[in-house]
Amino acid sequence: MPLLVTGSIGIDTVITPRRRVEGVLGGSAVYFAFAAAHYVPVRLVAVVGEDFPGEFSGELEARNIDLAGLEVRKGSRTFRWTGRYSENLNERDTIEVELNVLAEDGPRVPAAFADSDTVFLANTHPTQQRTLIAGLNAPKAIVMDTMDLWIENERDSLLQTLGMVHGVILNDAEAVQLTGKLNLVEAGEDILRIGPRFVVIKKGAHGALLVTGGGVTAIPAYPCRDVCDPTGAGDSFAGGFLGYLAERGGGGIDDLRNALVHGTVVASFAIEDFSIGRLKDLAREEIDRRAAEFANMLRFL
Amino acid sequence: MPLLVTGSIGIDTVITPRRRVEGVLGGSAVYFAFAAAHYVPVRLVAVVGEDFPGEFSGELEARNIDLAGLEVRKGSRTFRWTGRYSENLNERDTIEVELNVLAEDGPRVPAAFADSDTVFLANTHPTQQRTLIAGLNAPKAIVMDTMDLWIENERDSLLQTLGMVHGVILNDAEAVQLTGKLNLVEAGEDILRIGPRFVVIKKGAHGALLVTGGGVTAIPAYPCRDVCDPTGAGDSFAGGFLGYLAERGGGGIDDLRNALVHGTVVASFAIEDFSIGRLKDLAREEIDRRAAEFANMLRFL
Repeated sequence: MPLLVTGSIGIDTVITPRRRVEGVLGGSAVYFAFAAAHYVPVRLVAVVGEDFPGEFSGELEARNIDLAGLEVRKGSRTFRWTGRYSENLNERDTIEVELNVLAEDGPRVPAAFADSDTVFLANTHPTQQRTLIAGLNAPKAIVMDTMDLWIENERDSLLQTLGMVHGVILNDAEAVQLTGKLNLVEAGEDILRIGPRFVVIKKGAHGALLVTGGGVTAIPAYPCRDVCDPTGAGDSFAGGFLGYLAERGGGGIDDLRNALVHGTVVASFAIEDFSIGRLKDLAREEIDRRAAEFANMLRFL
Repeated sequence: MPLLVTGSIGIDTVITPRRRVEGVLGGSAVYFAFAAAHYVPVRLVAVVGEDFPGEFSGELEARNIDLAGLEVRKGSRTFRWTGRYSENLNERDTIEVELNVLAEDGPRVPAAFADSDTVFLANTHPTQQRTLIAGLNAPKAIVMDTMDLWIENERDSLLQTLGMVHGVILNDAEAVQLTGKLNLVEAGEDILRIGPRFVVIKKGAHGALLVTGGGVTAIPAYPCRDVCDPTGAGDSFAGGFLGYLAERGGGGIDDLRNALVHGTVVASFAIEDFSIGRLKDLAREEIDRRAAEFANMLRFL
């Protein structure tokens, strides 16, 4: 039942047209964990540096996120990222990035976490993703993300990892880059041929596409009036999606399709505040209420 | 019951990454009419030049589109447009445009058409849109489109026309330009304040948004594997949307929401071939079958 996530933990500076926030908690594993923790217990596997504020660990623990796989590495510094958003919040530039501990050895899966059922491998080097898989017994669902850097420079290794997972959650530009197909349905079908049973293609403010052997499901984004900070929307989507699947204990087509609604809704909350401001105080009823409202909005004919 | 459409009729040359077709039937009123004719009888009000091929008139008539409002103007030439699409078909450049008869006086609504119930004013000069409205008795629903040119140069006239219509169907860039709001929900709400009862914001390959006083509905595009030519997708959407509304004879929130499905589905057929190739031979059952399948795809939780 517990869900294991491995990915980055960062200290972010985010600049939007309206505000700038400095030194806030971020990173793919963090957004994923805060999103998924609304559904099932979450186990975090990641590395930070000595400078990682105890206050941030406290926030993770307050959410019942198990930190037994969080290595605080002596002599290292935590990953830092500064990004600036465009006027309509749909694009962003990375202004500054310090890889720090992310450029060193990756984290290890503690023995106590080896029995995890559902696993999310957020974006890291595909070889490291395989090392993490090797530390697990026999998870029912391994789902991965990736990024342009590995598609460009580590293609063979990436294809090998893709052949070992049950699902992939990636964005539209990555799907096109990986497959050479400009049509996202075709891109998704090409990725299925590499091995995964399902592919979710995220389209940012435009929703997502689920492609399985049984067909395609398109879902729009939840229509938001007040977007504060889109950082972590994709990882929150993945957290809501996999958290829901882990809670259901299933992976049939109905569960996958309904997981799209939960991913979308959790992401819609994530972007209402900076960092994990909204996700951490969110009540499960709020998620379920918005999910029901969203499903109702999508009921036609 | 009959639906009146007024807009452009063109002779198009379309260049996609795979093919180039020359001298095919196009224009906003044409796509709209072929789409809407699957639902209700359509009355066409437009002007062409002497060079307009009889074969094209024959195709319109074969679809039961009433051409009593089609003026073939002596000494004038038909509007011509050449467009080239990007590799992924999501963007296009206008390579050449000859306004020809569109730069002259607009068409007139024949007396026999004055009793039309539902009216679509495709994009033209907003003053001309008001002249057309003046030629009608008391339509139950007047819906309009517009374009960047009028938003930029004829703002006051456009606002006056917007104050006279029941609904607006326009694309995302136009909604942002018209209102100065980057968030599409806010843009839609601003447009409602000008007068219309509903606003549909089209997002091309990313679906559409319906904004009414009662709330917002987002709908994705139908996931298409084989897109041939996106020309006319937006006008076909409008035709399916308003054709369905006219057939229902209603305009309540449920009808408007379900009309989104029909607009989306008819547009998905339109882009499967060049010009009106697919729309003209389409059977109503094919539309209804895809609409049911699409609504089913959107049924969650």
